[in-house]
Amino acid sequence: MLMDDMGWGDLGVFGEPNRETVNLDQLAKEGMIFPSFYSANPLCSPSRAALLSGRLPIRNGFYTSNDHARNAYTPQEIMGGIPDYEILLPEILKEAGYRNKIIGKWHLGQQRQYHPLKHGFHEWFGSPNCHFGPYDNKVTPNIPVYKDAEMAGRFFQDFLIDTQSGESNLTQLYIQEALTFLEAQASSGAPFFLYWAVDATHEPLYASKPFLGRSRRGMYGDAVMELDYGVGKIINKLLELGVAENTLVFFSSDNGAATYAKTQGGSNGPFLCGKETTFEGGMREPTIAWWPSVIKPGQVSHQIGSLMDLYTTLLKLAGRQPPADRVVDGIDLTEVLLKNTEVERPLFYYRGNELMAVRLGDYKAHLWTWTNSLQEFNKGIDFCPGENIENVTTHAQVNNTMQPLLFHIGRDPGEKYVIRPNTMEYKQNIGLLMAAVQEHRKHLVPGIPQLNMCDRAVMNWSPPGCEKLGQCYQAPSTNPQKCSWPH
Amino acid sequence: MLMDDMGWGDLGVFGEPNRETVNLDQLAKEGMIFPSFYSANPLCSPSRAALLSGRLPIRNGFYTSNDHARNAYTPQEIMGGIPDYEILLPEILKEAGYRNKIIGKWHLGQQRQYHPLKHGFHEWFGSPNCHFGPYDNKVTPNIPVYKDAEMAGRFFQDFLIDTQSGESNLTQLYIQEALTFLEAQASSGAPFFLYWAVDATHEPLYASKPFLGRSRRGMYGDAVMELDYGVGKIINKLLELGVAENTLVFFSSDNGAATYAKTQGGSNGPFLCGKETTFEGGMREPTIAWWPSVIKPGQVSHQIGSLMDLYTTLLKLAGRQPPADRVVDGIDLTEVLLKNTEVERPLFYYRGNELMAVRLGDYKAHLWTWTNSLQEFNKGIDFCPGENIENVTTHAQVNNTMQPLLFHIGRDPGEKYVIRPNTMEYKQNIGLLMAAVQEHRKHLVPGIPQLNMCDRAVMNWSPPGCEKLGQCYQAPSTNPQKCSWPH
Repeated sequence: MLMDDMGWGDLGVFGEPNRETVNLDQLAKEGMIFPSFYSANPLCSPSRAALLSGRLPIRNGFYTSNDHARNAYTPQEIMGGIPDYEILLPEILKEAGYRNKIIGKWHLGQQRQYHPLKHGFHEWFGSPNCHFGPYDNKVTPNIPVYKDAEMAGRFFQDFLIDTQSGESNLTQLYIQEALTFLEAQASSGAPFFLYWAVDATHEPLYASKPFLGRSRRGMYGDAVMELDYGVGKIINKLLELGVAENTLVFFSSDNGAATYAKTQGGSNGPFLCGKETTFEGGMREPTIAWWPSVIKPGQVSHQIGSLMDLYTTLLKLAGRQPPADRVVDGIDLTEVLLKNTEVERPLFYYRGNELMAVRLGDYKAHLWTWTNSLQEFNKGIDFCPGENIENVTTHAQVNNTMQPLLFHIGRDPGEKYVIRPNTMEYKQNIGLLMAAVQEHRKHLVPGIPQLNMCDRAVMNWSPPGCEKLGQCYQAPSTNPQKCSWPH
Repeated sequence: MLMDDMGWGDLGVFGEPNRETVNLDQLAKEGMIFPSFYSANPLCSPSRAALLSGRLPIRNGFYTSNDHARNAYTPQEIMGGIPDYEILLPEILKEAGYRNKIIGKWHLGQQRQYHPLKHGFHEWFGSPNCHFGPYDNKVTPNIPVYKDAEMAGRFFQDFLIDTQSGESNLTQLYIQEALTFLEAQASSGAPFFLYWAVDATHEPLYASKPFLGRSRRGMYGDAVMELDYGVGKIINKLLELGVAENTLVFFSSDNGAATYAKTQGGSNGPFLCGKETTFEGGMREPTIAWWPSVIKPGQVSHQIGSLMDLYTTLLKLAGRQPPADRVVDGIDLTEVLLKNTEVERPLFYYRGNELMAVRLGDYKAHLWTWTNSLQEFNKGIDFCPGENIENVTTHAQVNNTMQPLLFHIGRDPGEKYVIRPNTMEYKQNIGLLMAAVQEHRKHLVPGIPQLNMCDRAVMNWSPPGCEKLGQCYQAPSTNPQKCSWPH
């Protein structure tokens, strides 16, 4: 269960003061929480590509080299997507006899060759892109929603989202799709992999009518409550079907809460900044593992984890190995899940093509700092609203490589108090962190950047199946150009 | 159990990422948590005086009128203290047959006439003041520690605190005192009131040797872990003695975490600023109620609560009424505890003699804003480190009374996004808040300010019992003067 732009601080169990996530809090009580679990990137597409490939975006190509340290993703006009060279989690699970379904947002490329069914999934209900605009199909097409390999309609035209009231039935559809899939799999007896990639907490926020206005947190809270309700439905279905004890449920989010969205965004709890940044608020995720009779209830794992670890861990549980011909960044967490052990591992915080920071143990070193440009900031786009830490939340890309900014994020989770370079603590720890960086770089072969080129001609003008729905539009002539990434 | 400078975000159950408060988190699972529970003041002495008198500091005299909106407390040279006119909680409980003990910090005045045994407590082990300096008994006396009405020694001289390593046995002594008291009460069968007012999380931080270095959070975390251990010991003792089902355990803190102490202070989670301020970080407290077989496990109360409510609630449970001849600000929470009902009530945020803000439902209006003076700030004293919200975290005392700053702290717990006065939401809500303020002011008769005058002669030069210990020092001649309160 991968949430969209949900922040670490959005669950009651992680300290959200309104305590509105009763099902997730219950899941946490019955399972294991991971307060130090991270996405592989502070932005959606690279994060999701990393989850499914087990590899950092710098390796799998989900980055741009057009501009230094810029976040890039997969808007409609993007030409790239997940390369065939990458062996995705569902591809290997398929070989192992699993039935794989993705419900919700794909985000690994919107051209046909990049779609889920070309990369290991048997079924799909959802969209290749975010559910935001253009809202006007005359100028550019609205995002299509797919049922497997064919278009089932488009957002706004067929799958309604009222941008005024926020009303939409999408989460209910995503819940129902999941329940139906689980029922089919339970009766077939075959193992399954369900990737529930819902997106109600991504702008524009939405919730179905019964949930609108229910939260104390406004529409963002309404969306969270409906997703929490969905989690409860799915868990109950697993129990009802008698497959819960054979099923690992893993809940997390793709990146930090979108603090720039102000009260339309979520909460990163005590952490600094949010989505798009390599501060803790950008990449620390609300994470829960649940597996009755296998994972003991009420546990806390201090393991530094990454969404990429799901790749290696799920393969291990399916009795398979990750490919041996490439570097896989995810590590195997099965011992962590089963025995609450802890493995030391460095964590790398990338932004686009730049390694911005590294964590090892409770120390984190920022090689580069950047929030966003002063120009963007002055337009009102603020990744760190209300937060201002001198020399840390910088609006210029600052290269600290020669003397990285060191923090102890155990006693200073908000990255407020830099450890001065003239202290023993700095001298004793910076070397270990930099050695991890050096080791990492030694083996690093960047993939071909997939997010460099855009072309309006590759948009979803005429997705497969559009003719049946009378929704085929004429594409303009091709005119590829470098994508521009301001963040 | 009243903590000292512990913040809302310091417990695992309230989102502290290192999750080191296993006993308190268990208490929360077995009891009821209050995410919207407040102290009556953002500073120690007024907060504690309000708890025990059930009345706001502006009524009970725990404020200064020397300077507008300044925080005042009870340092050694203070002349004032809790007036005899105030009827403290233990005074009424005593009449009801309770045996009352305070362990730890009193803070309601350090001259003899203000001591706990003069105001309803039967027993005392602890000190009238904070455990900080002067550390040098030649110039000014160290703070005495009392055993009931007589001095048992002094901090640093007899009750050691190693300010270098932070090592001290004090929390262990406070735990043992509690266990011994509980054993005695259980065997006597008489009802009891134990006020466990420990202070290890107040600077200078301390912990006993087995706890030093155990936390991932540095010495602050070590102190928290030892207090959490103490909570566990006390709970187990109640269970072991068979009195748990007759005992309400209530855990909270006296004010927000001391953010100015940087990594030596605690965490206020997602809330703005900290101790000394009337932002949420200054007064929202980590609060748990536990009472097996009476309070159902795993509950969340959204009641807006105050430490002053303990006065009214505990009297109710003891079958007594609060005094009828005065305004009591605390409300009766017994229905909330027993049935998880919710009562609407306004909450008033005072700083010294000024009503700074008011909360009603999920709306909060700031009539005044102030963090601290630019002069203090420039000396490095920062109540909102890393936080800077335009027109909100002001360094001048800004009077917004004509157009209060309105926030919805359900969707904006960090008080970052002011609701603009030209919106419907503002117009529909500000009137209700201001009506509550008007109603409050109509009945307000400020008490005689107790914290205006200081005199070095009233310091603890020769506390009762000093002669037995050879620790009587010569007081200087009396020279009363106005206390100076920079914050």
